[in-house]
Parts: sequence; structure tokens; C-alpha cells
Amino acid sequence: MSDTCVATYRLYDDRADFHKKAESIAVGLTVGSWTDIPETKKASMQKHLGRVVDVHIHESDVPNERYADVRIAYPDVNFSRDIPALLVTVFGKLSMDGRVKLLDLDWSSTFQQAFSGPKFGIAGIREQLGVHNRPLLMSIFKSVIGHDLSALREQFHQQALGGVDLIKDDEILFENPLTPIQDRVKVCLEAAKQVEEETGKKLLYAANLTGPTFELRDQARRAIDAGANALLFNVLSYGYDALHGLSSDPDISVPIMAHPAMAGALYPSPHYGISARLLLGKLLRLAGADFVLFPSPYGSVTMPQEDTQGIREACLDTDRPMKQSFPVPSAGIHPGLVPLIIRDFGIDVVVNAGGGVHGHPLGAAGGGQAFVQAIDAVLQGTSLKDYAQNHEALHHAIQIWGTKE
Amino acid sequence: MSDTCVATYRLYDDRADFHKKAESIAVGLTVGSWTDIPETKKASMQKHLGRVVDVHIHESDVPNERYADVRIAYPDVNFSRDIPALLVTVFGKLSMDGRVKLLDLDWSSTFQQAFSGPKFGIAGIREQLGVHNRPLLMSIFKSVIGHDLSALREQFHQQALGGVDLIKDDEILFENPLTPIQDRVKVCLEAAKQVEEETGKKLLYAANLTGPTFELRDQARRAIDAGANALLFNVLSYGYDALHGLSSDPDISVPIMAHPAMAGALYPSPHYGISARLLLGKLLRLAGADFVLFPSPYGSVTMPQEDTQGIREACLDTDRPMKQSFPVPSAGIHPGLVPLIIRDFGIDVVVNAGGGVHGHPLGAAGGGQAFVQAIDAVLQGTSLKDYAQNHEALHHAIQIWGTKE
Repeated sequence: MSDTCVATYRLYDDRADFHKKAESIAVGLTVGSWTDIPETKKASMQKHLGRVVDVHIHESDVPNERYADVRIAYPDVNFSRDIPALLVTVFGKLSMDGRVKLLDLDWSSTFQQAFSGPKFGIAGIREQLGVHNRPLLMSIFKSVIGHDLSALREQFHQQALGGVDLIKDDEILFENPLTPIQDRVKVCLEAAKQVEEETGKKLLYAANLTGPTFELRDQARRAIDAGANALLFNVLSYGYDALHGLSSDPDISVPIMAHPAMAGALYPSPHYGISARLLLGKLLRLAGADFVLFPSPYGSVTMPQEDTQGIREACLDTDRPMKQSFPVPSAGIHPGLVPLIIRDFGIDVVVNAGGGVHGHPLGAAGGGQAFVQAIDAVLQGTSLKDYAQNHEALHHAIQIWGTKE
Repeated sequence: MSDTCVATYRLYDDRADFHKKAESIAVGLTVGSWTDIPETKKASMQKHLGRVVDVHIHESDVPNERYADVRIAYPDVNFSRDIPALLVTVFGKLSMDGRVKLLDLDWSSTFQQAFSGPKFGIAGIREQLGVHNRPLLMSIFKSVIGHDLSALREQFHQQALGGVDLIKDDEILFENPLTPIQDRVKVCLEAAKQVEEETGKKLLYAANLTGPTFELRDQARRAIDAGANALLFNVLSYGYDALHGLSSDPDISVPIMAHPAMAGALYPSPHYGISARLLLGKLLRLAGADFVLFPSPYGSVTMPQEDTQGIREACLDTDRPMKQSFPVPSAGIHPGLVPLIIRDFGIDVVVNAGGGVHGHPLGAAGGGQAFVQAIDAVLQGTSLKDYAQNHEALHHAIQIWGTKE
């Protein structure tokens, strides 16, 4: 039975017979009832039957803490090769059946064949930017709502001057009359070109792709026609398959950045939902995200290290025939955290900052420079404090935010 | 400030100043930072600024039980008129910021104008079926995976003979070579026609609409061309906006039934996610669901009464200029529960059964008849036990499953 998808669940129950429960899931979510099937049909139904792989029971005296990690194999033949079908099969009804969390999915190579993953991936994006041996640096618009095109252009210009590789829209900047996507792509990429002429530095701008589901592809093409060289997308509010539809469209020839908006409704509970690693790591990469944003383990809005490392592994894992996704730990990032980020994530990471760029006393350009200097220092094996002695932007940043190294 | 969407959150924190926290959400999720805005810009930015409506603190000595219900008004001008934009605005980033659950959303009439809601609604569906003064009765295919067209047709025929008004696919029946949607619609509706010729009874068959997001409309049209008179849709695995795109498409001229698959990843935790009433009630109706399925408060997979009543109210509420959605409490329903269902939901409800139809000793036809008899009994004010004395199908059902009245 190689062509199956194995789902790992954590089931909580004070009293249940977990082996029996696992069996009832394996049968109930596939053929319905095995005993009701006539003997003459059993041979042909066997290939549709779910199978319990294993059950690991964690006994505990703490109330509500008795649980089991259960793995169940679902035959591929039961579902079509798309993420909605996979999720509905393994967790559609089951999600509503008591305290149960979906921890992991391990699909078959046959299922995998329907997905080509990220179109560019880490290597392709490094190629586009001409940056190979260091983390990438991204900054986010500070404030976007209510600003007009010239204000956005100016913000973009200041950020670009700091030496960042990527600039992204805020995820709450939707299609609006003041800064429609085609117009803001135009003015921002003019600013990018202007800076590139001065510095020789290339830059990707991820414009937020929003609006009605069935118009997303047209909207993406319009943005690309206007010059967009990357897109930001709130995947979870549209479903993974919308991302897959975008990433697998040959006309949508730019990297896609997946924003984790709404993810906190799904991953943080120990008892319900979907693990962060699966939700934001494995499934976003499968659906074709070139960049995967998630809360960093350091900042204001934090995610536990175990989860952020799980996402990182899912983004970089080489077991699957897919390009790698760039992990982008986000929120509360300042230059003093760069040593930790590189320690925890290596150089295949995007250092992503908002307040840590815009809150710099020398402005957004100075903020970007401070990050560039922090990255240089770490890669040279120098402490930030030492490096800051001859680097003004970093010096200011450390004075405000401190360092952790 | 009438054109706002008011979001209600439950925030948990042992120590936080909830008023301060509310203020930081209202500002942070709209203009970003008020103090950073130059004085000259403040007048023009005022219309984008979020506002704290009220904060109700629940003090408690129980650890982890100190919480506040906070209402925040978000100006409509900040987001486009679609559900992904609304959700990302009010809960995108915030969902990841500690223990916080989204309890409710109250959008403006301006926002509402972008939505026409269910295309048929309760009245339209009653009109189609010619059934006006009783609950509708639906049965679900017992087992679908691995069965061929003739087996499905036979199952359908048996269910139809029992006198049900609606038959729905199982939500895990995806596009597959054995029973592709166009073919199964054809054979099932032939069976429906055959029964109608005998009994005069009309029937809707909700075929499961699955596959790639960007092909859903074409797939729906193909099913309708083949004769489909209703569609089932796993909304949460595709996003609300896909449902809205389907329900607002003039060519998709059949009622849509929203299945709650995956909903349990979102509603059951007290600390995270989205309330069942909002998730499955208000938002599904806004997006255009003619039928809303959810776990019943009675059966095997249960939802608390408070939640099921919240969903019911959201489906039936007459404050909004939208047709009503049929509430469909599901799972574990047998004829003996019909008195409770009608007591709790009134007659504007669909009595929906799987095992309670197929597990009947007289077969699926007998199972349907038992439900029809149970409904008749309740509407006549007779106890099921009395009614069963002269009604064999109901008598058998009560012997197996008992009654609750």
C-alpha cells in the first residue's frame, strides 16, 4: 500500500480506547463501515479501506492530558489530487469529532506529482537578485492605508535606499481607489529602478494580490503586465488551492509570497486545528509559495521555536522533488536579532522587518543599512557591538533595540 | 461613523490592561501608529482609524480565565468589499497575537450591498419542492467510495422511495473515474424522476462540487447542464469567497449546500479561532449558502446547543436584506430525535440523516418513511410512541434507537 497519504493526529480523551478509536477513523473516513459490506464486495473495497499505521498512547494523571498520537493511511484512490480533497478526506468530518489536532500529513509521490511546488524557490530567487551567500533582507511598508501613490513611492524609495532585497505590501492593503495595484506597482518599481541605477542593486516588490477569487488570475496578470516582479497573497483566506492555481499558471511568472494572515485561528491550540509546520510549512510549499511568512520566535507576536523550526524544515527539506521555499520569520525583528536569526535559520532565510526599519533614527534608509551591517557582521564572525563601532546605522539600532547574540 | 465593521473578540490574559490592548488593536490594525502621523495628515487619516467600541472585563481567580470581550469598529474605507479582505483586516495578524477568539462581526449595510446572500433561501427551496408547512427531510448516501454508477443509482432509488425531499453526496466523494459528477447526476436524477412519476414527490440532489478552485464555476455549469438541481460544497477548504463567486454567478442556477468540513479546526477552542455562529452561520449565509450543515447538539459528533442556536439565528435573522438559509443540524440523527429537532429549530429546518435512514431494518426506504412518520406525528401533536402503534416504519426505528421527547 504505497499510494496512501498518512495523517498523524493527536487525539485527547480521558477514557477512550485509542486503538478502537483509530480503527473507527480509518474505516469511517474511507469505506464507512466494513461489516456492512457484502462479502462479495470486500475484495474490491479493500483498496479503498483506511489503515491504522500505529498508535502511541501518552498516559498522564493530569486531567485532559491523556492523549494518543495516531497515524492513519488513506488510499490515494479515494481522493482527487488537490489539497481541498486531501484535507477534507483526512480532517473534514474528524475535525469536529472531539479534541483532535492534525499534526502531520505525508502524501505519496503519486499525489506529489500533481504539484510542482514553488516556481522559483530559494535558488531561483537568489538568481534573480544576484545574491548567493547571505540571508535576504526584506522591509515592509510602515503604514499604507490612507496614503496616496506619491506617499507610497516615497516610502518605497527610502526603504530601497537602505539596501534591502525585497519590499512587501502590508497584507491589509487591498484593492482601493487611492493606490490600485497596477498604479502602485508602476510608481514603486520606478523608484526601485532609480535606486538600482544609483546602487546597482536589484529589488523585488511583492504587491498584495486581493479581490474576488475567480478574478485573482486576471488581477495577477494585470499586475505583472504593469511590471510587478513578485506577489503577496493571503493564502488562508482563499484556500491552498487558489495559491496552487496561481503558482501553476505559466502566465504568473513571478515569485509568490504567502502571508500567514488568519493562521492563528488554526495552529496555536494544543487540542484543535492544524500544526504550524503542516499549515504554514508543508502545505504552503506544496501549493507553490516561494516565500513563507510566519511569526518569529523572538519578537512581539511570537511562535514557539519548535514550530518555527518545523516550518523551516518543511521549507528546506530535500526529500521532495520541489524547489525550496524561503522561510521568513516575521514580527518584532530588529538588527540586534540578526545573530539569532542566522544561528537558528542559517543563511537561507529572509530577515524581514517593519518597525525595525522604519523606527531607525536615520529613517528607513538608515534602518535598512543597519540590517545590512548586522548581516555583514555576523557573516564575518564579528560581534554586532564591535562592528557597530565603525558602522553608524548599526550603532544607532543597537542603542535603541539592543542585541541578542 | 456608521460605515464600519464591528468585530467582537474575546481576549485572554492573566495580567493585561485590556483597555490599552484594545486601543492598540484598533490603531495597529488600521493606521498603524497614530502618534507617528504628522499633525497635518491627522485630519485626512481620521476616517481610517479604528475605534474601540467597548471593553467588558471578566475578572476571575481561575488561572487562564481572566478575559475581556472587546468590540472594535473598523472603517469600511480600509478594506474591499469581499470576505477575505474583511477577515484579514479584523483577524489576519491578530489571530496570531496570543489567546484571542473572534466571536462576532457586524458589518455595515454598505458592505452588505456587495452580497446578495442565498439565491433561493428557505422560501425559494420550499417553492421548488412544494413543501411549505413542515421541516424538510434529507438523506445522505451511506457509502460512496468505490461504488459504481449502478450501485449509486440503487442507493439513490432506495432513499428516494422513503419520501425524502433531498439527497446529498457524501462530502468525501470527489471527482473520480467511477462516478464523475455529470454521470452520477444523470443516473441519480433518472432515479428521482422514476420515483416522482410513482409518488408525485419532487426531490433535490446535492452533488458534491470539487476540484481545482479556478475550474469550480465550469464544473458547476457542467453539472447543471447534466441536470444537477443542487450542489454540495466544502466551503472552508476553498474559502468563503469561492462560495460567494458561485452563488452570485447567474449561470449557477441551483441551491448550494455548505458542508462544514474542516470547521472543527476553527470553532471549538475557547481561546482561539472563530465562533461557530460566525463561521458557519453569519458568514456562510453572507457568502450565499442556501443550506448550512453543522453538527447537531444531539448525536455522536455534537456541537453545544448555544452554538447550534447561534447558527440557527444567523441563518434565519431578518435584519439583513438577504434570503434565509436552511439550518441543517447533522450527525447521529434518528427518527426518535425529530421531536427535539422541531422543539429546538422549529419547522424551518432540514432533518438530515445517514445511519438513521440506512440502518433501518426495512432498508433505506423504510428509514425515510420512519422519518416522514416522525415528522407527521410531531406536527399533529402526537407522541412518537403513540403514532408508532399504527406506523410500522416508525415502530421499528423506535425499537432500535429509542425516542427523546
